[in-house]
Amino acid sequence: MDLSRAAAEAADATDPLAGFRARFTGTDDDGPDRLLYLDGNSLGRLPRETPAAVARAVEQEWGQGLVGSWRDWVQQSGRIGDVLAEGVLGARPGEVLVGDTTSVDLYKLLVAAADARPGRDVLVCCADDFPTDRYIVAGVAPARGMTVREVEAHIDTGLELDVLARALDERVAVVVLSQVAYRSGALVDIAEVTRLAREAGALVVWDLSHAAGAVPADLTAAGADLAVGCTYKYLNGGPGSPAFLYVRRELQEQLRQPIWGWFGQRDQFAMGTAYDPADGVDRFAVGTPPVLAMAAVEVGARLSAEAGIERLAAKGRALTELVIALADEWLGGHGVAVASPREPARRGSHVSLAHPQAWQLTQALIDRGVVPDFRTPDRLRLGPAPLYTRFVDVWDAMDRLRTVLGDRSHESYPTERSRVT
Amino acid sequence: MDLSRAAAEAADATDPLAGFRARFTGTDDDGPDRLLYLDGNSLGRLPRETPAAVARAVEQEWGQGLVGSWRDWVQQSGRIGDVLAEGVLGARPGEVLVGDTTSVDLYKLLVAAADARPGRDVLVCCADDFPTDRYIVAGVAPARGMTVREVEAHIDTGLELDVLARALDERVAVVVLSQVAYRSGALVDIAEVTRLAREAGALVVWDLSHAAGAVPADLTAAGADLAVGCTYKYLNGGPGSPAFLYVRRELQEQLRQPIWGWFGQRDQFAMGTAYDPADGVDRFAVGTPPVLAMAAVEVGARLSAEAGIERLAAKGRALTELVIALADEWLGGHGVAVASPREPARRGSHVSLAHPQAWQLTQALIDRGVVPDFRTPDRLRLGPAPLYTRFVDVWDAMDRLRTVLGDRSHESYPTERSRVT
Repeated sequence: MDLSRAAAEAADATDPLAGFRARFTGTDDDGPDRLLYLDGNSLGRLPRETPAAVARAVEQEWGQGLVGSWRDWVQQSGRIGDVLAEGVLGARPGEVLVGDTTSVDLYKLLVAAADARPGRDVLVCCADDFPTDRYIVAGVAPARGMTVREVEAHIDTGLELDVLARALDERVAVVVLSQVAYRSGALVDIAEVTRLAREAGALVVWDLSHAAGAVPADLTAAGADLAVGCTYKYLNGGPGSPAFLYVRRELQEQLRQPIWGWFGQRDQFAMGTAYDPADGVDRFAVGTPPVLAMAAVEVGARLSAEAGIERLAAKGRALTELVIALADEWLGGHGVAVASPREPARRGSHVSLAHPQAWQLTQALIDRGVVPDFRTPDRLRLGPAPLYTRFVDVWDAMDRLRTVLGDRSHESYPTERSRVT
Repeated sequence: MDLSRAAAEAADATDPLAGFRARFTGTDDDGPDRLLYLDGNSLGRLPRETPAAVARAVEQEWGQGLVGSWRDWVQQSGRIGDVLAEGVLGARPGEVLVGDTTSVDLYKLLVAAADARPGRDVLVCCADDFPTDRYIVAGVAPARGMTVREVEAHIDTGLELDVLARALDERVAVVVLSQVAYRSGALVDIAEVTRLAREAGALVVWDLSHAAGAVPADLTAAGADLAVGCTYKYLNGGPGSPAFLYVRRELQEQLRQPIWGWFGQRDQFAMGTAYDPADGVDRFAVGTPPVLAMAAVEVGARLSAEAGIERLAAKGRALTELVIALADEWLGGHGVAVASPREPARRGSHVSLAHPQAWQLTQALIDRGVVPDFRTPDRLRLGPAPLYTRFVDVWDAMDRLRTVLGDRSHESYPTERSRVT
């Protein structure tokens, strides 16, 4: 592998997604001191179309259209859901809905799934999964007299299927699992896990937060039953943007989620006496979705769909491959170890590097115009988002990291964590 | 009462809140054909400051600040909550949090309250309450082996306290009730209901959706324990804007809500293994709040706080008094009956008029530049929002309604409901 900057420039020159970069703000500056944003796996960049789309929702739809705009707004959750279904998730129309937070959506689907497996009293989750996933499971289990069975995953390489398989038996009702692990970026095979769970009679609720827009989920092909995910990372929907949920069409009528709100009601504005859940995926809605935030989600979702998830994933593999190769070449001597799967098909679009002073390195990089993030206990996480990150951006960011490690300037930073990422 | 238009003009001339009207968009046109928006009880108007505040959140905070803006964003839910607590709800700092939807917030507090009353197996709600309140209760009860006891309320005049008192006994865990009834506008006394419930050993979860920003809740003075409410009506936070929840300070550490998300976790970014709920009202948070929508809520909340809830309520009483007086004077002969409490202290800031052809009247009014809304079965609901509705607006709207009834033009409209409000 040619690790020269010229090779990175050459990769950008033939990148089929190169044109998408200009559709995000903050990408004009091409100078040597420009900001190198490698935290799109935490909060994606702002698409250039978004300010106008949000302003239109605020000024025309709300300001002028007032309540009359509900004619369109009631379509929003399903319309954006269909964009994600077709363009990003490999699902069918009418299977995805946008609204609520990832945590609330996970709670709804987890309870619905547990209800659909009466007599089973175990919920399985991964000991190294993202906190909110583990916390939601930890809260649901005791409230239902169930117990949690945590499966161990390797902090760098993720969950092994045989470890999961050993945890599955006739007591397991539901498995909650992330497709891409938030720290290491390790990717699990949705089809294989779904098959294992189904053999054991359990349902899986997938968390696609660190995967959606970066790697294909191929939910229909994989036979996946249930999933949730966030839209503010690779889908560039904005800070705290509403999440999505997916329910396989054939399961929708069998499931009932626990929060019976009026947006899940059949013929909602008849305001009937008894709760009667709507047909299809709409029954998984609860309250009034935040329309202004949804306008931003729609722009982001359409951008990823336009780029195509296979092209995004291919570029993500190439970008992270470059991170790993440069880390091996330049940083091994400085105590940096790659803490993500080395096999491209086993990871998402971010890479973690382990270093005892990862927190200080994060601060030093931020002061040098590189935005990564820190993850406990000692990880520097780099997320080159395929829509707007170039190969030269990765090269330059790694070069700045090499410089920091070389001059040891990170050692002057305090050790305590005080920054919110 | 002088029912001339000149008297309405005179009332506007001495209105201490008159200056707030110009701070909303769509209020420039003063011509005889101007839009008369009497649906602020469904979706409040757009404050003029909001587009810039939202644009700042989109372009500066997200577009330029990127993840670094989380330093401020993590304060948003509590900061806006404190504005509402002090300026609108009569609560103390640290008792109100903004985020999620009203339905999800109601679910969280209802389950937390039911958990705090072990051994009790009845949830009380009002048969005529807003659908989502009834549906949430209907969903929670069977999941916990509880039953629902519905108390009847008069469709026009609301819930009588003695009716509620008879429904309260040692089996009742929680009462869910709206301060202002969504259809009639009937207002119940929070302090009295709280006292009755407490005597019976039950907790009350208040829904302040149709009250917040229109009438005082005085939560601290009333001794209220728990409340939720929406911000898109009188608080002008925008379509589907995030809701608020209130938990009395002394109860916070005793309660635990069921959706254990990472935003409710102590030291959230340490991403600890076990869920350990944060101190104070933060433990009632779940997932990442929709930051862009929250920016609009903040503007709306500050406007109502600046106006002062007592002044807003006084003007609301006077505006609805004018609606009732004009309905009596002009419309009684056309089969229109006032379907809201006549005593000013017993209603919020909207009035319902009953008419067999209320649906057609609603459509005819919309075509004549008056926006009310229709509520089943036969109600025309008029919500003059005290922040931006003038007495002459009410007079002119009622005058147009008189004209429609006089020329019977509403009879040419179809009878089926097809419009979303």
